[in-house]
Amino acid sequence: MTYKYNNVYIEDAFTIGGPYESNGPIGIYLSKRYTKDLYFNETSWEKAETKILHESIFNLLKNNNLFDNDIDLIISGDLQNQISSSNYAIRNFNIPFLGIYNACATISEGLIIASNFIESNNNKRIIVSTSSHNMMSEKQFRNPTEYGAPKPDTATFTVTGATSVLVTNNKSKIKIESSTIGRVMDLNVKDVNNMGAVMAPGAGETIIKHLKDLNRDNNYYDLILTGDLGIYGEKILKDYLKQKYKFTLKNYKDCGTIIYDISKQPVFAGGSGPACSALVMFSYIIDLMKEGKYKKVLFVPTGALFSPTRVFQKESIPSIAHAISLEVVK
Amino acid sequence: MTYKYNNVYIEDAFTIGGPYESNGPIGIYLSKRYTKDLYFNETSWEKAETKILHESIFNLLKNNNLFDNDIDLIISGDLQNQISSSNYAIRNFNIPFLGIYNACATISEGLIIASNFIESNNNKRIIVSTSSHNMMSEKQFRNPTEYGAPKPDTATFTVTGATSVLVTNNKSKIKIESSTIGRVMDLNVKDVNNMGAVMAPGAGETIIKHLKDLNRDNNYYDLILTGDLGIYGEKILKDYLKQKYKFTLKNYKDCGTIIYDISKQPVFAGGSGPACSALVMFSYIIDLMKEGKYKKVLFVPTGALFSPTRVFQKESIPSIAHAISLEVVK
Repeated sequence: MTYKYNNVYIEDAFTIGGPYESNGPIGIYLSKRYTKDLYFNETSWEKAETKILHESIFNLLKNNNLFDNDIDLIISGDLQNQISSSNYAIRNFNIPFLGIYNACATISEGLIIASNFIESNNNKRIIVSTSSHNMMSEKQFRNPTEYGAPKPDTATFTVTGATSVLVTNNKSKIKIESSTIGRVMDLNVKDVNNMGAVMAPGAGETIIKHLKDLNRDNNYYDLILTGDLGIYGEKILKDYLKQKYKFTLKNYKDCGTIIYDISKQPVFAGGSGPACSALVMFSYIIDLMKEGKYKKVLFVPTGALFSPTRVFQKESIPSIAHAISLEVVK
Repeated sequence: MTYKYNNVYIEDAFTIGGPYESNGPIGIYLSKRYTKDLYFNETSWEKAETKILHESIFNLLKNNNLFDNDIDLIISGDLQNQISSSNYAIRNFNIPFLGIYNACATISEGLIIASNFIESNNNKRIIVSTSSHNMMSEKQFRNPTEYGAPKPDTATFTVTGATSVLVTNNKSKIKIESSTIGRVMDLNVKDVNNMGAVMAPGAGETIIKHLKDLNRDNNYYDLILTGDLGIYGEKILKDYLKQKYKFTLKNYKDCGTIIYDISKQPVFAGGSGPACSALVMFSYIIDLMKEGKYKKVLFVPTGALFSPTRVFQKESIPSIAHAISLEVVK
């Protein structure tokens, strides 16, 4: 499903990264950097993640001189079971809440719901948030890192960070121009350490659907930016599009390979997690858009709908990807 | 946040219940009944839940002579970690998907998002789905039932069932007239066997907000129907509204006490789970609306945003409730 919008803008965003993200290539673009450890003065990984998610919302409000009752709605989701990072961060705000989950594609789902609510003139200001935490994710989805389980090169490294985005009908420099909601794909991949392979087909289908629905060609976007496919997933996506659609991706990058220096940091095939694409897009890329380097960006966060329980039951891993077109306003 | 709609209707719904639900007071109103066991010919509780969720979507399409490409969007969520029941059921359909999570208030969240998407004329037909499974829930949130852990009277019994609702801009007998999105409440309750107490304040705040925003009084609705507070939660809600707002609830019922015969079935304080309010509303209550017994119903599903991990970490349990006004079209 593809939507066009005339009235939806990004007013501001607040991005927070942990030590790996702060010391990586996009570190200087982040709103706030934690460089010491992954606890952030909390007593559990779950609480640490909640703390930075709360902080991203709190600072977004503060920086824009807004109070809770200036915000119509907050839409948020994360990887913690029962999206607890969102539930617990948001109980401290007096703002109506919708909880969402599309794994690492969560930020795009939130932006699409927010855009539709704003475009229909029912809302003026919506905050869309997401977070992820490396240690929380490893513990919940694989093994606590203390076990020291070895990983193959195709594994990705969950980003520790939080992003909150203020979506509004107030004209600003960056517009949400259109969006495409993806469908659940499953190509029978069962390898929990190769999420790039799980997610690449979903990304490919959503990109093709978006371009086709809006009758756009390969040159329309200055940048097509997928979520977190990593170095192997990037290659699979390119091959998939070439073989299935004879389509050659141009001006293409992946957030998972932007957020870290893969040659130097111990991150395997690159970054992942809902905060990966959210941090890259709403710190580094949005700054480059404001500077005029990119005018039209297709942002395609990708999500592996991975359930450890289901994988133990020998199921394959489904995936999803949604596309958002962001444009610099003339 | 309260919205009014002019153009949003319930075209149809398909409801499925397990043995306890099929043998309970609303059994005869369900679209499909499983009366043998809770496996539904599958090999795990997770797969059993996914099967009935898939079946509810499949039959809703079939009964209305619709194909995948007639549906613009499917919005679904459930209690399984990573909302896997939804992810795995929906991978079999070629329909764009948004995953949501507001615990047992999920059906209301889905209906509100669907209503806004349809009201803005961007969509014609959206399916909103949810499911829950008693054994899956007990295993994931508390203990596998095989352990035989005793429970206090305030515990509720998770409903096994699935509901899919077809929301549309085609005029039908039942209209979604307005909605109110609730905020996350936390009154510091930590008892995982007393969800009624956790959720009652959230329900109370959302009911008051809805009536106030639309300037409606105590007599406006023929029925105010909360999600799954159970017999103790019902009482807490009434007390909460009386003490805090001097407000006396009239024409009030709770889905958790409707779905089972509490005097005869072994269900403690009543039903719970996302399928509880969804089954009661879209089988029994909607039939009574069509027959003219109720003309205006305020449907208020309630959700305990309960995370076992967080409770082990000594956190309290937040809750949420959203309200949907359903009216018989004249």
